[in-house]
Amino acid sequence: MATTGAEESVRTAMEKAGLGGGVLQAKYSRRVLISDIIGRPDGGEGLVGEKVVVGGWVKTGREQGKGSFAFLEVNDGSCPANLQVLVESEVFPLSQITATGSCVMVRGELKQPPEGTKQKVEMKVDKVLEVGTIDPSKYPIAKTKLSMEHLRSFVHLRPRTNTISAVARIRHALAYATHTFFHKNKFLYVQTPIVTTSDCEGAGEMFQVTTLFSEAEKLERELKENPPSTEADIEAAKLLVKERGERVSDLKSNKADKALISAAVSELQKAKDQLLKMEERSKLKAGIAMKDGKIDFSRDFFARQAFLTVSGQLQVETYACALSSVYTFGPTFRAENSHTSRHLAEFWMVEPEIAFADLEDDMNCAEDYVKFLCQWLLDNCLDDMQFMAKMYDKTAIDRLRSVATTSFARISYTEAVQLLEKVTEKKFENKVEWGIDLASEHERYLTEEIFKKPVIVYNYPKTIKAFYMRLNDDNKTVAAMDVLVPKVGELIGGSQREERCEVIERRIEEMGLPKEPYEWYLDLRRFGTVKHAGFGLGFERMVLFATGLENIRDVIPFPRYPGKADL
Amino acid sequence: MATTGAEESVRTAMEKAGLGGGVLQAKYSRRVLISDIIGRPDGGEGLVGEKVVVGGWVKTGREQGKGSFAFLEVNDGSCPANLQVLVESEVFPLSQITATGSCVMVRGELKQPPEGTKQKVEMKVDKVLEVGTIDPSKYPIAKTKLSMEHLRSFVHLRPRTNTISAVARIRHALAYATHTFFHKNKFLYVQTPIVTTSDCEGAGEMFQVTTLFSEAEKLERELKENPPSTEADIEAAKLLVKERGERVSDLKSNKADKALISAAVSELQKAKDQLLKMEERSKLKAGIAMKDGKIDFSRDFFARQAFLTVSGQLQVETYACALSSVYTFGPTFRAENSHTSRHLAEFWMVEPEIAFADLEDDMNCAEDYVKFLCQWLLDNCLDDMQFMAKMYDKTAIDRLRSVATTSFARISYTEAVQLLEKVTEKKFENKVEWGIDLASEHERYLTEEIFKKPVIVYNYPKTIKAFYMRLNDDNKTVAAMDVLVPKVGELIGGSQREERCEVIERRIEEMGLPKEPYEWYLDLRRFGTVKHAGFGLGFERMVLFATGLENIRDVIPFPRYPGKADL
Repeated sequence: MATTGAEESVRTAMEKAGLGGGVLQAKYSRRVLISDIIGRPDGGEGLVGEKVVVGGWVKTGREQGKGSFAFLEVNDGSCPANLQVLVESEVFPLSQITATGSCVMVRGELKQPPEGTKQKVEMKVDKVLEVGTIDPSKYPIAKTKLSMEHLRSFVHLRPRTNTISAVARIRHALAYATHTFFHKNKFLYVQTPIVTTSDCEGAGEMFQVTTLFSEAEKLERELKENPPSTEADIEAAKLLVKERGERVSDLKSNKADKALISAAVSELQKAKDQLLKMEERSKLKAGIAMKDGKIDFSRDFFARQAFLTVSGQLQVETYACALSSVYTFGPTFRAENSHTSRHLAEFWMVEPEIAFADLEDDMNCAEDYVKFLCQWLLDNCLDDMQFMAKMYDKTAIDRLRSVATTSFARISYTEAVQLLEKVTEKKFENKVEWGIDLASEHERYLTEEIFKKPVIVYNYPKTIKAFYMRLNDDNKTVAAMDVLVPKVGELIGGSQREERCEVIERRIEEMGLPKEPYEWYLDLRRFGTVKHAGFGLGFERMVLFATGLENIRDVIPFPRYPGKADL
Repeated sequence: MATTGAEESVRTAMEKAGLGGGVLQAKYSRRVLISDIIGRPDGGEGLVGEKVVVGGWVKTGREQGKGSFAFLEVNDGSCPANLQVLVESEVFPLSQITATGSCVMVRGELKQPPEGTKQKVEMKVDKVLEVGTIDPSKYPIAKTKLSMEHLRSFVHLRPRTNTISAVARIRHALAYATHTFFHKNKFLYVQTPIVTTSDCEGAGEMFQVTTLFSEAEKLERELKENPPSTEADIEAAKLLVKERGERVSDLKSNKADKALISAAVSELQKAKDQLLKMEERSKLKAGIAMKDGKIDFSRDFFARQAFLTVSGQLQVETYACALSSVYTFGPTFRAENSHTSRHLAEFWMVEPEIAFADLEDDMNCAEDYVKFLCQWLLDNCLDDMQFMAKMYDKTAIDRLRSVATTSFARISYTEAVQLLEKVTEKKFENKVEWGIDLASEHERYLTEEIFKKPVIVYNYPKTIKAFYMRLNDDNKTVAAMDVLVPKVGELIGGSQREERCEVIERRIEEMGLPKEPYEWYLDLRRFGTVKHAGFGLGFERMVLFATGLENIRDVIPFPRYPGKADL
């Protein structure tokens, strides 16, 4: 299967042109990906006559010709489309391979299908190499149309559906595009910690990470297997210490032989050790470690309370203030009892942070990044996007095109409030006035109705924003910005950070926050401070925006929300 | 600052050739990256005469000419080398910018340095645009040479050191290379969950994720602010219910006016509601939610015990069994009380999983991946590698070259044991015999002494491996493989997975594991099962291997280990 470099580059060139060039073998799997057959620009026509092995799962199987042959629609996840596979009954028992969800690995020849069929190529099987059978009566996702909600009960099988597999490919594309964008622009990827002891200024409720429960369980088992000494045992041990002590005194006062005394001292020490151990064990109590009536977190794994991170921003700033352009992309957590279609307890965030940059640089970066993601999907996932547009949201592709090519509107918070105050066609549930935190209805009205394109709102009132955002000269607003997009509203939130030590100290005080936990953060301002800015993009929000799906639980492989953490 | 596409491509071509072509502006920051000056193939010579803005932190500053000017070595993290910057005292007070750790943003002209100096270009400043001053007496990392251990107490400042910034660039390169390798080979990136309810077959001790502590705190606060009703209060409330009940009965038996009765009934209902509320509140107890003497995890956020994942493998298999070639790359956790230089409580793993693949495909993928990473560093991080080789490990670059170009040895576990049994030059601490789990000393002897290159050991005894590894026909071994490399020993562990449902069920039983938690995993074998294989690479182990550093705590930005989770 080895090829020379020259062969490969010729092949690649021909492949790119969609002109035959032979079959591309999959890597690390002795088969051909279905996307490398029907995903070619010629739909696979140029491969007619080639012998290939393919593997995949049967979407539908139809016996025909009175059971003399069957057509299988086979999908291997490499693209949304299926390969049509013809198997004759002499080749293999058809009943074992036609049920939806069966797995097949088959060898055969690519053929021209009969005229008038949509596909450009089909496969005629000469050997069925491997089969994973299925009992259709037990397969929970055998039906072709199941609600998204129903599928959430089968997170281990739902990637076999057309929708969830399309989402997986789009999500992969967006993740890869993210790394590509930042790498190309010379940002370094910094993996910020998941477990944190910084309570990030109440960005939300936090999960606690602990080993105290398992320590308590271990202790309970241990005490059951090996119960602590009774008071009588301890009294007996004390008596023994006393007796042996007296013996040593006697020997010493009688000026006995040194060896004899030393032996007696050693016996005494043993008795003392034994007593100490018994006394310590008698203090052990089943249950969580406590001290002075409170849970004793000094006995927890990290010797203090530790949490799951709500954002990597503060930590990634330490790298920005040394390596200038950095980003983090990782999971973040909120322990909020929220059951909406827009919130998850575990979700991924992309957070770039740029030194020697101000709010305008930040907005430029955010706009370019979102445009890059949209263009990437158009260039790399058009087939999946067409599926999503057909099934869920007719405007999905147009939305990507429009965002990729249109300049984002940029308005100050004050202008945004003025625009919203003038609105008469719509009655908002939340009253608009300067100083409010814009609600989702306001954000969506700005981007969907007034501007009909993405809008960046900047310079928010300081009272509704975090302490680390840079205070503007008006002393009323901070250099914050949100990117609002149609369909989801707020996609990105960012700011220029306050780099002036005395200002940020004052802000911490004003907001009634304790200073001690932020000493390390202040150090970044004390020692060679730098103007810097950054933002956070909710990755699942971006996948929602792209796919047009309604519920955030369907755009992450394993959704976590109150009462639910399957697998 | 905008350029046309044509201008840009000409510039890029010239840049590539290292032939002038003007200055490349940094993205989203109005300056030029130092790597885009002195990192050019011509060392920046072609840019002499250009006016640029650069920003960075002062590594060293030397006043000269009786204080009439100063040379600053400025680093912005874009490359290991510093730009030499000349500032005259008329331009700016030198004392504010010469201390190590000061931040400067300066404008000036690139000049040819005097003959005989190493660098090809230096900068003469005409304006200091921004300064972040520093008090050297308080800067904890002002000294040039500090132990790695000392630096661990300053994780927020240590990225400013040459070593940690080189590690950050190498780590970034390895992460980006990882995504590039798998994307190129058409694997989809699947983000497996961090919070999990699957206890993955005792791969290690797990951290628990909970909101019970914060719920208990909330309740305690609430009870303090609003103490529960006393017994006397409840008695009074009961009396009220009784009285109002009697009043209703009276009215009814007297056939009173309907409105009157209805009002009395409503009053009764109010009293009843009040009583119920008081009774419920009186049951509230401070402390963790309990039920039948045990902690009541049904009241926890996910309505059951939840943990931090020890591996994404089992979950990513669900995607492999639908989309064929996938991988996960994310944080994993072990709550082990381990204080070695090789273990962390939080670390990152790369775990590909391939459908329609066997152990040989798996080994091919692992070998290609490791080679790709090594070649990538040679191609993209040579300057950082040269720094590591000079400061920490003279063999670091040779090791990369050798691994990138040499075929890995492949031997069965049985052969490995036979080879080790024959060793006479070295006395192992752990006795070698068929059936043992190879210790680190054995693994390193195989790769460093016997083969002097990476070795893949495969087909391990089933008794020392996990239930999900595919049973070989000998019924004694499983299709597992470990990749051993010089310097770190085991870098990768993988296996072909058991795809036969009845075999895996038997193995679960044999190993005394409960079946219920694995029902979803068995479903993958019940419904269209597929031959598949995968592996896990410990990402920090790979960074250790590349950099030649000794302690794993220095190759992750924010190390977590017992008693330590700074920031």
